Amino acid sequence: MTITIALDAMGGDHGPRVTVSAAVAFVRDEPDAIVVLVGQPEAIAEELRRLGAASEPRLPIVPAAEIVRMDEPPAQALRAKRDSSMRVALGLVRDGRAEACVSAGNTGALMAIAHFVLKTLPGIDRPAIVTALPTRQGHVHLLDLGANVECSAEHLRQFAVMGCLVAQAVDGKERPTVGLLNVGVEEIKGNETVKAAAQLLRASGLNYVGYVEGDGIYAGDTDVIVCDGFVGNIALKTSEGLARMIRAFMKEEFQRTLMTRLVGLIARPILRAFASRVDPKRYNGATLVGLNGVVVKSHGGADAVALRNALQVALREARHNIPERIRRELEPPPRRGLA
Amino acid sequence: MTITIALDAMGGDHGPRVTVSAAVAFVRDEPDAIVVLVGQPEAIAEELRRLGAASEPRLPIVPAAEIVRMDEPPAQALRAKRDSSMRVALGLVRDGRAEACVSAGNTGALMAIAHFVLKTLPGIDRPAIVTALPTRQGHVHLLDLGANVECSAEHLRQFAVMGCLVAQAVDGKERPTVGLLNVGVEEIKGNETVKAAAQLLRASGLNYVGYVEGDGIYAGDTDVIVCDGFVGNIALKTSEGLARMIRAFMKEEFQRTLMTRLVGLIARPILRAFASRVDPKRYNGATLVGLNGVVVKSHGGADAVALRNALQVALREARHNIPERIRRELEPPPRRGLA
Repeated sequence: MTITIALDAMGGDHGPRVTVSAAVAFVRDEPDAIVVLVGQPEAIAEELRRLGAASEPRLPIVPAAEIVRMDEPPAQALRAKRDSSMRVALGLVRDGRAEACVSAGNTGALMAIAHFVLKTLPGIDRPAIVTALPTRQGHVHLLDLGANVECSAEHLRQFAVMGCLVAQAVDGKERPTVGLLNVGVEEIKGNETVKAAAQLLRASGLNYVGYVEGDGIYAGDTDVIVCDGFVGNIALKTSEGLARMIRAFMKEEFQRTLMTRLVGLIARPILRAFASRVDPKRYNGATLVGLNGVVVKSHGGADAVALRNALQVALREARHNIPERIRRELEPPPRRGLA
Repeated sequence: MTITIALDAMGGDHGPRVTVSAAVAFVRDEPDAIVVLVGQPEAIAEELRRLGAASEPRLPIVPAAEIVRMDEPPAQALRAKRDSSMRVALGLVRDGRAEACVSAGNTGALMAIAHFVLKTLPGIDRPAIVTALPTRQGHVHLLDLGANVECSAEHLRQFAVMGCLVAQAVDGKERPTVGLLNVGVEEIKGNETVKAAAQLLRASGLNYVGYVEGDGIYAGDTDVIVCDGFVGNIALKTSEGLARMIRAFMKEEFQRTLMTRLVGLIARPILRAFASRVDPKRYNGATLVGLNGVVVKSHGGADAVALRNALQVALREARHNIPERIRRELEPPPRRGLA
């Protein structure tokens, strides 16, 4: 089955130079995928020519005149830029002309415009951002990563339902385990919202395993971990910062003297194999779940390799039709007639 | 000047075996330090004998019959165990017989008992937990790390004042920079509490530099970073979990084949130098600031090397008399007579 992905070709720190190059490589690998390049036609066509892909039929261009700046306030992007590449790409999903949208643009604007254009699924109050993170045993789906900085217990329950459906579809797990991120594992720990969410989750019918502490994210004992967007964003970015520092320290140690450089040369294949296991590029692509359509956010600074990964995430989620699964799961059961 | 530290000798996962051994090594290095070993005299005396330190005059024993279990509810530890090693050690600080207390015991119980025994300083509503974390440029003081899972903007302001005084005293920085942990650096980002705290901090006279994102913790551009205890605990434990996973992955890669093991052997000094820069043992010892006395919490699983580091933190903070500095800073200015 052919899947069409609308790509915001102007989004991200590098614009078409990265987005078009990622799309070209992606459609070569994925014979069933079409990537619609949304944005300024000249800029996109020039990149396609540069890459020798000007005549690729699976890379159509849909024009959009405006660009949402990376630092533009979401409300302004929503109100003032009706012809932005981001909004036009999302419109293609709404109109059924694409199954998914990928953007490396301004996260807040993407959230606001996606919410406005696609609307949330019935039974979902707010969309959430979910991504897979590497763990010692595979990966974990963590949400929310920043869409909702203040959440109620009921929001956390909805995040758990959506996270489990993603894990089911993507990992093929029948009853994924779900934990609540907390400051301790004992029942008395946590703030009032987390305690109330624990009660809702115990009664939810989900495979709820209880509280998980911060270090439990990377232990890999849980398939889905739920938290509010403030906490999730801090956990994710703190991890990015620590990983960067560790890489920098390691590099410094191996470059200290001629001798350590030599050892670094010998150890290079091992260090590479190690680095690839925690390479953030491999984990680029976070989904905005809870909307009427698949929307994937790439890191703004993503290069073509990382952006291809985000396209891969979109393809997978569209193939599994995650929005439709969430809709079915949350649909109230049909009423029986009394007569 | 001699500094006396009351050590909860029964606290932590390993009890006297680790605590006494750390104390013995510590007083050998620090000729001006006395470590009072609080707990069951037989168990402590036996360890002292085993280490050939039974006659060390700077390691007196103060008996306490009870032990707070690591999983004991704080309220129960506070109410029921009046003769616990933790409580007796804190009592020595209250009575002026010690300048600082160190415990590797149950964090919640230590918080509750320290709060009850020592009381908070005037102008401080709640004590906070602060620790130094390694950064690319040195270290950063992060607080609160879990004492307060729900905080008001005013609490965050008080944490900022205390964190700055710690940085001033410990690092000798005259006007340490202080940032607020948030999900973005733009003014519109964050929840209501963080936004209100930003206003208080801008008006505080502190060297407030604005919002810092999670990855900013390890960048090292800020001396003090403030957040509520829920977020701080998640950031700290997530970091611990990620560092553990990275260590495990690295070990696996170097142990994959005979060849990679050989390279690992050659690279060992470099890998050791690298590991020591992010060694959690070097950063063991978090302070409960805001109390009438220095109280340092060690990791429960700390070994003797890590616990010595916690004793070092206590010695440094007692030498700088941090509680007194906080008291002076927050003291209302004397009223002038009108006549």
